[in-house]
Amino acid sequence: MTQTPLILVTNDDGISAPGIRNLIAAMNRIGKVVVVAPEGAMSGQGHAITINNTLFLDRVTIDDGPQEEYKTNGTPVDCVKLALDQILPRKPDLLVSGINHGSNSSINIIYSGTMSAAVEGGLEGVPSIGFSLTTYKWDADFSAARHYAELIARKVLAHNGRLEAPFILNVNIPYLPLEEIKGIRIGRQAHARWEEEYDKRINPHGREYFWLTGKFVNLDDGTDTDEYYLSQGYVSVVPVTVDLTDYALMKRLKKWDFEE
Amino acid sequence: MTQTPLILVTNDDGISAPGIRNLIAAMNRIGKVVVVAPEGAMSGQGHAITINNTLFLDRVTIDDGPQEEYKTNGTPVDCVKLALDQILPRKPDLLVSGINHGSNSSINIIYSGTMSAAVEGGLEGVPSIGFSLTTYKWDADFSAARHYAELIARKVLAHNGRLEAPFILNVNIPYLPLEEIKGIRIGRQAHARWEEEYDKRINPHGREYFWLTGKFVNLDDGTDTDEYYLSQGYVSVVPVTVDLTDYALMKRLKKWDFEE
Repeated sequence: MTQTPLILVTNDDGISAPGIRNLIAAMNRIGKVVVVAPEGAMSGQGHAITINNTLFLDRVTIDDGPQEEYKTNGTPVDCVKLALDQILPRKPDLLVSGINHGSNSSINIIYSGTMSAAVEGGLEGVPSIGFSLTTYKWDADFSAARHYAELIARKVLAHNGRLEAPFILNVNIPYLPLEEIKGIRIGRQAHARWEEEYDKRINPHGREYFWLTGKFVNLDDGTDTDEYYLSQGYVSVVPVTVDLTDYALMKRLKKWDFEE
Repeated sequence: MTQTPLILVTNDDGISAPGIRNLIAAMNRIGKVVVVAPEGAMSGQGHAITINNTLFLDRVTIDDGPQEEYKTNGTPVDCVKLALDQILPRKPDLLVSGINHGSNSSINIIYSGTMSAAVEGGLEGVPSIGFSLTTYKWDADFSAARHYAELIARKVLAHNGRLEAPFILNVNIPYLPLEEIKGIRIGRQAHARWEEEYDKRINPHGREYFWLTGKFVNLDDGTDTDEYYLSQGYVSVVPVTVDLTDYALMKRLKKWDFEE
């Protein structure tokens, strides 16, 4: 690559979250960075887009830079669309999303705004990586995550021009000191689910309301999954597809007689 | 099946939308129907869940029944979680979502609240079907869609107990008179994308804002895709997976040396 890489940075925890500030710092070491991120928390937004509401986009300065930054009232996917259509002078060489406060391994990818931004980037033909750290602590130590974000971003950029689109990675980093992380492993999404438990309460006006809570249950005993590698102290990298067709089920369904 | 099937109905256009009212009528002919749906429009919500806000759940009566109905301020995925955890006496035999006003074929599945509800049902081990009609007209004629929704729901129920979870179908129905629909075809998700175009305006206070608009572009010339079958006048059925691992890319990535 002869020109400076152009890197789009976004997240779902909001533009002020420590996770994205660390990611910006890491990306500033690699290329020209443009940040387009939600003004507030957008966790659990999945692949939501804003259709029935208007979007604002404001240039902001949050630290000494040198990155260029914008905040929006939209979702992470809106941020990517706005960046590509309204802000960036050309298609970026890389999109990075995160660093998320909390794991997006396994089935969490489906609910994750961080990963949806990466998926949207991939759909647009931009090599895209979502980074997540396996702790919800707001003041977590992001130094190991930042190290691996830089390493993996550099590796993807080194392959630029030779990647088939969509190229999307779901990277989860165990919350461990850098020296305790054993390395990087490429794996598959573990088969797991959330068992939801609602916390039912009564508001001061006597009306019932609910908070969503839940428990993550890993149903997969494979030793090639993101959950497994994280449990063993590795950074897990899962490549992500946008073709949701269940080809095995398709074969079985073709034997059904729908017309009878 | 010896007992009356228990059927959960939801959607993303809101509980009063003609699409869901038609779907409820069709399902009442098959089993005991419980409706849990958003109070208002939730289009484009993807797999969003409500984490940072409280959820309300109200029993409502909208027509003569006999179904049991609840509305929530949550997303389609919230509706499914609330139904399974708080309302239904047992795991339902079937979840149906829709009938959506507008196609959810191809890449639209990623943005669709209708399909996210079906995916959530599938994750919970409930055979789940999302139905969409290929027109955005609010007062569309849903009679053909209703016919096929009933036919496909009955077919899935007939296989109950023999389906591997997750069992999720994305069903799109062409907006044609019943007699012009040629039948049902099982296909794969067409490779397509949205080219977004923002409509930039200035509000009365002088601030720029944006409306998301866009153009759907089918990049797939296969004759085994949902887009193709719809164009030929068939109802398209695409089975949906929740494993987003890109296995082909995984193989290629394993040859990269991340540690160098």
